[in-house]
Amino acid sequence: MTKSASATGAASLWATYELSLEGPSSGNPFQEVQLRAIFRHGEREVRVNGFYDGDGQYKFRLLPDAAGTWTYETLSNAPALDGASGSFEVGAAEPGHHGPVRVSNRHHFRHADGTRYINIGTTAYVWNLQGDAVEEQTLATLAEAPFTKIRMCVFPKHYRYNQNEPDRYPFPLIKKGTSTWDGSFNGGNGAWEFDFERFEPDYFRHLEKRINQLAEIGVEADLIIFHPYDRWGFSRMSPTQDDAYLRYLTARLAALPNVWWSMANEYDLMQSKKPADWDRFIHIVSDNDPFDHLLSVHNCFAFYDHNHPRITHSSIQRSAASNSSLWREKYGKPVSIDECCYEGDISELWGNITPQKMVRRFWDGTVNGGYVTHGETYYNESETLWWAKGGKLVGESVARIAFLRRILEEGPDEGLDPVKSTGAYRIAMAGGLDNVVLQQLFSPPPGEEGWSRVQAWWATAGQPHRYYLTYMGENQPHEMTVAVPPDEHYSATLIDTWNMTETRLSDSVKRGEVLYFEPKPYLAMLFRRIDG
Amino acid sequence: MTKSASATGAASLWATYELSLEGPSSGNPFQEVQLRAIFRHGEREVRVNGFYDGDGQYKFRLLPDAAGTWTYETLSNAPALDGASGSFEVGAAEPGHHGPVRVSNRHHFRHADGTRYINIGTTAYVWNLQGDAVEEQTLATLAEAPFTKIRMCVFPKHYRYNQNEPDRYPFPLIKKGTSTWDGSFNGGNGAWEFDFERFEPDYFRHLEKRINQLAEIGVEADLIIFHPYDRWGFSRMSPTQDDAYLRYLTARLAALPNVWWSMANEYDLMQSKKPADWDRFIHIVSDNDPFDHLLSVHNCFAFYDHNHPRITHSSIQRSAASNSSLWREKYGKPVSIDECCYEGDISELWGNITPQKMVRRFWDGTVNGGYVTHGETYYNESETLWWAKGGKLVGESVARIAFLRRILEEGPDEGLDPVKSTGAYRIAMAGGLDNVVLQQLFSPPPGEEGWSRVQAWWATAGQPHRYYLTYMGENQPHEMTVAVPPDEHYSATLIDTWNMTETRLSDSVKRGEVLYFEPKPYLAMLFRRIDG
Repeated sequence: MTKSASATGAASLWATYELSLEGPSSGNPFQEVQLRAIFRHGEREVRVNGFYDGDGQYKFRLLPDAAGTWTYETLSNAPALDGASGSFEVGAAEPGHHGPVRVSNRHHFRHADGTRYINIGTTAYVWNLQGDAVEEQTLATLAEAPFTKIRMCVFPKHYRYNQNEPDRYPFPLIKKGTSTWDGSFNGGNGAWEFDFERFEPDYFRHLEKRINQLAEIGVEADLIIFHPYDRWGFSRMSPTQDDAYLRYLTARLAALPNVWWSMANEYDLMQSKKPADWDRFIHIVSDNDPFDHLLSVHNCFAFYDHNHPRITHSSIQRSAASNSSLWREKYGKPVSIDECCYEGDISELWGNITPQKMVRRFWDGTVNGGYVTHGETYYNESETLWWAKGGKLVGESVARIAFLRRILEEGPDEGLDPVKSTGAYRIAMAGGLDNVVLQQLFSPPPGEEGWSRVQAWWATAGQPHRYYLTYMGENQPHEMTVAVPPDEHYSATLIDTWNMTETRLSDSVKRGEVLYFEPKPYLAMLFRRIDG
Repeated sequence: MTKSASATGAASLWATYELSLEGPSSGNPFQEVQLRAIFRHGEREVRVNGFYDGDGQYKFRLLPDAAGTWTYETLSNAPALDGASGSFEVGAAEPGHHGPVRVSNRHHFRHADGTRYINIGTTAYVWNLQGDAVEEQTLATLAEAPFTKIRMCVFPKHYRYNQNEPDRYPFPLIKKGTSTWDGSFNGGNGAWEFDFERFEPDYFRHLEKRINQLAEIGVEADLIIFHPYDRWGFSRMSPTQDDAYLRYLTARLAALPNVWWSMANEYDLMQSKKPADWDRFIHIVSDNDPFDHLLSVHNCFAFYDHNHPRITHSSIQRSAASNSSLWREKYGKPVSIDECCYEGDISELWGNITPQKMVRRFWDGTVNGGYVTHGETYYNESETLWWAKGGKLVGESVARIAFLRRILEEGPDEGLDPVKSTGAYRIAMAGGLDNVVLQQLFSPPPGEEGWSRVQAWWATAGQPHRYYLTYMGENQPHEMTVAVPPDEHYSATLIDTWNMTETRLSDSVKRGEVLYFEPKPYLAMLFRRIDG
């Protein structure tokens, strides 16, 4: 007689399905018990690692990618966990369940079921460690905000404005260290001690609960696995401890549909990790993720090599969002500028850009075929800065980012790709320079047909012959020469990206016509094909 | 019996002194007559070239650099012009006469008599070819404006918004060409023809008149000798014609106190000139200028090699004014950013930056030890754009530049030198990063004493232990940690560079104190020593 596991409710497509078994609770089950389940759907097999959840409970999690009958069997070195089997029916996806986000069309994203995903991130590194009141406020804020992704850490964070102690820790606490932020660092007197050979299941259950709540409001969790802002020692575990942590984390979280693996925030500031460590971490996470979640490594100074085959997209910290088109070419992957400074007023240079600048970086990224992540650091007395703790958003960029999101939603389903542009054909048209000189300086790139540099003087993205979105940044021209491909007709809409207005300038323009408008900064122009 | 020349009025220090002689008017005096004068003051000799001014009149010009008795004698291949001699008394300088501007303190400027000169330029390329009404309006505008320099061309200009024909030409006209701007270029049908073997003295007399009027209102003329915006052929003369032009120009203009030699605007767009041509031009001009005027070459794309020993300062076209500190180091000369785009609303990308951005570039240059030149391109129906034709200034940056000028005038007489800054000590203070990592990343440059990176997080310029001016750009912090040298006391004044306000935050601060203020963009902080 075979034994079977208990399941949590009915199974449905793209919803985490969990099996539980009772097993040994003596010794160190985290270290001593090995367990895996094989799930089968027709010919297909999905192998998942199980994990110890405390109190003698062991769990296996599947993220079903097909409806119909699935079977399972378990394998373990603990007899109580070995050889369990059974079957279950996976029903159709419930509303809003679209599966993990994956790369689509080389530089863009879609959910596994083909639903379009527009990557509009924000950042609240440890919002999930602020207690229920603030955490629920964060969820309420996010439910109203335009963001489809949040960058957040597994581990607690030690930094200026981050001096509060979390309610719980990922590892059993042996000795409390110095908890007040006083400029001292990890190590030496006042150091914390944890049992890195075990985990605190409750810590991870809380993390999962918050990630699941994000999924309910349509927000992906770009989960930061390591980071350097640390007073507890979590950034300085041994390689063996690091690897056990990665296996435990992936066993628990890989079946959550909205998880992305961000191997680090500012990997290059973690002096205890070497290049070979990062490569090993990437392999452990992707080898132990049967559900192919997105995976990236975020930098402070030098980029990680985003050409690494297991890295799915370029997660970049830089202000120059307009370089997105270059990074797309360099890595052949989607570009996500996951830190471009923060709208705020703290004294740290990265934490006090204006809302205008934040919005500009979103647009610069957009018209160069990339995606940009928001953050906010306005100081308040409680030191609940959105960037780290979540809470409320008070900045002025959020409404403009929502405005941009709506424009993108109304745009091509494939996303926006940059229209190649190197130059200054406008000078040749407008100025008196010798055209031979200009032809030498600004010769068109091979294969660029139709869309000339008259328009492309300004960064433009779109889909050829259908849709062109041009952004004029902080400049304030009073006219634009239309440079859509010959013999095509487009509507022309002036967009004030800051004041959030759209003004139809013409229902039908063609190449060579000149549009006039009130000069001011932060304008964009949208050309939509009307005869194609 | 020796003959003597007639002189124009009394001679005084730093005022152009002119001698005239009658000579041959037949043949081609411009080509055939060689003439030079030797002026002597005590042991010193100053050799100047004479020039033919038409109607049988020949002239020699001296810019006296010493009071007292001077003598002269002339040398010529024309007997009527050879061997004239005489003496004259040079009186004290008249008010406002300070002599040519020269390099001082390696990266700054002073007049020859030691008077401080603050380089605050503007640009109106052919203001002197717009007819008396507009030209006089330009002079009236400049008299009220903060500018101490104007960039202007010798030759007329052909470009968009520059389609009008000048009243006169530098060379005798043989055949009128196509004068309407229609997108056609020099050469081919409709080409103009001039007698490049002769000059039109009246053209140069008018130029000199306007330059002298600039001197009266304290404005230096940064005279552009060649430029590529040309429908007449002036940019494509033969090497022999170019060289004759340079000798004629220097013979006429070198004795004007407020002339600077800008060998070109955008030298790299002149395809008919080769690198060896520019080197030869530089040598001809400086060899034929006995009065050591400033000399530079302005670029479009690639910088000219400002290390050239005859080049006195780096004349740079770039937007990134904050790189001034790097260019100071690279060339060891003053940095003058003589084109950083134009405040305006025309469609050309360089011609529509906001007034905020123009002001920002002035401040970025200033706190990095450089100087910045203004320009304005707001469209109007008469196409009298300041950038090319002068007229009226309508932009919003001018008042802010005047505000900056006053601050500089109240600052150190030596000018402002950048306080070395590479980093982010503020992170180490404020954040929770491992301080060993930060020490590796941001180790202080050798020899940097006192002024730590706490302050230098923001670009800062000044004079050590006396005066520090810090600019926060478009960022909007609400606090600043004071990082003046230890054991020194300073007043602290918050400057709103856009709203032109100065707010004394403290009469006495010292290192480590924190200043709080309302967060907004375009703030600067001025620390003046009170106990030194």
